[in-house]
Amino acid sequence: MCTVTAVLIADQADSFVTRALPQIDVTYGGIAGDRHFGLTKRAGVRESMYPRGTEIFNRRQITVVSDEECAAVAEALGVPEIRPEWLGANVVVRGFPDLTRLPNGSRILFPSGAGLLCEGENQPCRHPGDVIQSHYPDVSKLSARFVEHAQRRRGIICIVERPGVITSSGEATVVVYED
Amino acid sequence: MCTVTAVLIADQADSFVTRALPQIDVTYGGIAGDRHFGLTKRAGVRESMYPRGTEIFNRRQITVVSDEECAAVAEALGVPEIRPEWLGANVVVRGFPDLTRLPNGSRILFPSGAGLLCEGENQPCRHPGDVIQSHYPDVSKLSARFVEHAQRRRGIICIVERPGVITSSGEATVVVYED
Repeated sequence: MCTVTAVLIADQADSFVTRALPQIDVTYGGIAGDRHFGLTKRAGVRESMYPRGTEIFNRRQITVVSDEECAAVAEALGVPEIRPEWLGANVVVRGFPDLTRLPNGSRILFPSGAGLLCEGENQPCRHPGDVIQSHYPDVSKLSARFVEHAQRRRGIICIVERPGVITSSGEATVVVYED
Repeated sequence: MCTVTAVLIADQADSFVTRALPQIDVTYGGIAGDRHFGLTKRAGVRESMYPRGTEIFNRRQITVVSDEECAAVAEALGVPEIRPEWLGANVVVRGFPDLTRLPNGSRILFPSGAGLLCEGENQPCRHPGDVIQSHYPDVSKLSARFVEHAQRRRGIICIVERPGVITSSGEATVVVYED
């Protein structure tokens, strides 16, 4: 069991930065209106086994981070905080240690019946580091240091397995995939 | 790199048993006409975290087995062979040891451009054991023994990540997910 502390959407023009909402409605493909919404996506650098731009199934529908891991990365970088918005997070949880280590195939279940299927670690890239840098202009090299220090604690990507509402507070149940 | 040795479809009434075809056309959701085709499915015993019958995303679109693992299970059961048809397999490969241990998130890529995304071990249940038993009526307790001896070598389930044709012979490339 863990707690949801925020839900967010990436619906601002030309930005992956998210903003908090009272609730989000997840459906097959993600959150309607979010920049990562869709049952398919274009292959990018993270799917380099396909030609760039190829239409493929979208397994990066929802981004989940934990308060604890955000705090740990902030501490490692020497900054007061890293807000989930800056990471483009859609769901923030608290009380599940090592969220990023959650095995692929695990589920996060919500009281509405909504269920997310873990598709693995969201490997850190420079873009959130750039956003973090913009908030702390006096701290050096945050973009590159983010990529290094956020390994294995930048959260996970998920597919929507069962549609439903996720509210900005409430419980969630984690069902760990057993190999 | 491994080799495809058969492709098959489950299109016979009231049976999960598959039959070989010269090629299959995989698209989002699986193989049209196959009993497991669909972007969604009804939750069953394998998805006991959801109420039975709930519509959920279908991560069991395609079943892949290996010749080597089929042979190993046959040997363990003391029968001459276990045909992929009896396991409801859609794709059979040879030359990739321990297919069932392939980590979730790995890809199997085909010359047409088609790509399958591994969603984990296909945990053995009694139904294929019953089919095996029907082919070897003189060997005792095959149904139950199949469940025991097919653990970790009954193959994997996959999502279609990129549509395309998979032919009954040819090469395939495995991209192992790195944690």
